[in-house]
Amino acid sequence: MTGYTLPHSRDACAALDAENPLRAARERFALPEGIIYLDGHSLGPATHGALARVEQAAKREWAEGLIRSWNTAGWIDLPHTVGAKLARLISVDADAVIVTDSVSVNLFKLAAAALPVARSRTLIVEASEFPTDQYVAEGLAGISGARLMRVEEDRGLEALMETGGILIRSIVNYRTSHVMDVAEAEAMAHTSGGVIVWDLSHATGVLELNLANSGARLASGCTYKFLNGGPGAPSFVYAEAELARRMASPISGWFGHADPFAFTPGYAPKDGVARFAAGTPGVLSLSALDAALDAFEGLALRDVCAKARALGDLVIARAEGIGLEAISPRAASMRGGHVSLRHEQGYAIVQALIARGIIPDFRAPDAMRFGVAPLYVRFVDVWDAMDQLADIVETRAWDRPEFHARAKVT
Amino acid sequence: MTGYTLPHSRDACAALDAENPLRAARERFALPEGIIYLDGHSLGPATHGALARVEQAAKREWAEGLIRSWNTAGWIDLPHTVGAKLARLISVDADAVIVTDSVSVNLFKLAAAALPVARSRTLIVEASEFPTDQYVAEGLAGISGARLMRVEEDRGLEALMETGGILIRSIVNYRTSHVMDVAEAEAMAHTSGGVIVWDLSHATGVLELNLANSGARLASGCTYKFLNGGPGAPSFVYAEAELARRMASPISGWFGHADPFAFTPGYAPKDGVARFAAGTPGVLSLSALDAALDAFEGLALRDVCAKARALGDLVIARAEGIGLEAISPRAASMRGGHVSLRHEQGYAIVQALIARGIIPDFRAPDAMRFGVAPLYVRFVDVWDAMDQLADIVETRAWDRPEFHARAKVT
Repeated sequence: MTGYTLPHSRDACAALDAENPLRAARERFALPEGIIYLDGHSLGPATHGALARVEQAAKREWAEGLIRSWNTAGWIDLPHTVGAKLARLISVDADAVIVTDSVSVNLFKLAAAALPVARSRTLIVEASEFPTDQYVAEGLAGISGARLMRVEEDRGLEALMETGGILIRSIVNYRTSHVMDVAEAEAMAHTSGGVIVWDLSHATGVLELNLANSGARLASGCTYKFLNGGPGAPSFVYAEAELARRMASPISGWFGHADPFAFTPGYAPKDGVARFAAGTPGVLSLSALDAALDAFEGLALRDVCAKARALGDLVIARAEGIGLEAISPRAASMRGGHVSLRHEQGYAIVQALIARGIIPDFRAPDAMRFGVAPLYVRFVDVWDAMDQLADIVETRAWDRPEFHARAKVT
Repeated sequence: MTGYTLPHSRDACAALDAENPLRAARERFALPEGIIYLDGHSLGPATHGALARVEQAAKREWAEGLIRSWNTAGWIDLPHTVGAKLARLISVDADAVIVTDSVSVNLFKLAAAALPVARSRTLIVEASEFPTDQYVAEGLAGISGARLMRVEEDRGLEALMETGGILIRSIVNYRTSHVMDVAEAEAMAHTSGGVIVWDLSHATGVLELNLANSGARLASGCTYKFLNGGPGAPSFVYAEAELARRMASPISGWFGHADPFAFTPGYAPKDGVARFAAGTPGVLSLSALDAALDAFEGLALRDVCAKARALGDLVIARAEGIGLEAISPRAASMRGGHVSLRHEQGYAIVQALIARGIIPDFRAPDAMRFGVAPLYVRFVDVWDAMDQLADIVETRAWDRPEFHARAKVT
């Protein structure tokens, strides 16, 4: 139910692009010539605004403004002003989001702070969860003495119901792109006395998230994927205000203090989510992210989500024509902003695509991931990419030694 | 014993500048016209190299290279390559330092990882310690069940000897600039079975640190002060290799994993200090820092330290002429790269100086801090700044309402 009709020709794709409500958004991106970029689920491209803003933050604010820019350029407020822009994309109160640290660190803080709030001190992760989420639960169990439960795929809610513990769960799975029903899960959390810490990394900027209405209370996510914040851009924390007031961040750094420049010895947290700030925020990265989020200005999340689904439908339809199996759900409503296809030579096929100027990515052991970021990926891009994929698979063009050499980062 | 003679005139200052072994280093900085910058202990200025590098990282590596730059631009190695540059500045093995997260987060990780290694699960901080260090100890005690001991100024080592716990201690105190004797403290740690986590924030880049020879085993520090890495630049972790192998980071994110792209469910840490990495590194900030550290290239740490001491001696000598009391030690060997002067109207005096283009900073309740970063601060700069300070104090030029309005960040 995307409102789109599946296009069966390149011309039909071009027609969809021409009438698309997001068509102007692509102009906001500084995309390199001759590249079809289908890796926005890993690292979003730069916008013209973000590039200009980085230059301003470095040359004007840092080099000329020096220490004064903490006040005069609003550096001190960036974690909140950028948080407010993010809040719109996940449909929560503007002051319930703060930008700080990495997803790993934020998941740690949130899950740790949830320990005294949940009915039992049990940390739950599914074996199919993004590795860092699993590792963070393991590390937190070690330092806190909480019990670690690693359960099979899709058994997280069952374990939550049993234990009333803390489930760390991605809304969109990094490998399959499968989407979790937040409202249903939160209802179970409510019943069980448990708490869910949502990882929004592959969800924000591509789904029509409505966290507050779904009952979600705690979340973190990454900003360098569909939010285009730049390589290693800082992560964000969402915490529902009333719950936040009952929580203490285990990493109580000075930027989470109610009065950081009073230099008092005892810790008094800021109100609400702001207590999850820790050290001094990274201004250059935060500035890039601030400007990058303006790419969403004037766009309806409903349109963003609908186009992502339609693009994903096209990937799957063309893949079936090539005889490739989709790991991702066929139903668009069950899928995030990327589509994973399975092939035992997936790694080499992805390298062959990259050599032709088409950039998806690969996740071990066999998943080729095609990101369909709706702000800049067009239907013709998907069409052309799938033409090349078909050719590579049919001619076994992947069967060359250089496509099998593993890079450090895949 | 700086090898300098105290200058008694502006001409004598100019003569010292003309013959100074660091005189060429100032050219590496993009300093604004008409400003005397004495706040490098809070935020170092930009170098030309850092500004160019930020532009390259954004426009070339991110916008054009996209995801490929993790491999082709060496992003994935930055935490280590930048760490190796830092290692030289603190005299430890090149592979014993990694750049990651903020100081708050890193102190948390190191102190937490030291809990099973120290003789007792006691976290010790002095009441005069930088607030975030105190707060971090408090938060860690909460989540780990370790005992928190907050002791009076200079009583940390005594508590360490008594308990065999973990002392979090700055080498240079943020307020007084007092320097700790690392070798002596580490000898006591060794005897007691305790562990010291050093905070190098106000020390690196201005002292002739020799951590390995002094027996230091764990440290973190900030890179945006005397290292000029940029606003909120990432922090670093030093861990002695053998000790690191016996430690586990409580925040076990995927970048600390031995094989982060294998996506295996169980956590297996990288060897050595690299296990203290957590989330995806912030590439824009790391790139700025990487280039900024090149400002130290070809400079002897001994010369850097000697000039800082001589500049600090000049601040104190001139301050005494004005009748201002120094909070910082008079003995140069006991002092870091900033000098704190006491005045009950310190806040307003600092604002009056800033209005005249001279930028020190202020720490509550009464400390005016003058940073003498030896790479770009000249003897004539200190001389001129002290002339203005004398005038402001003598004419009570601070006594205007606008100099009393408190900014968010001081």
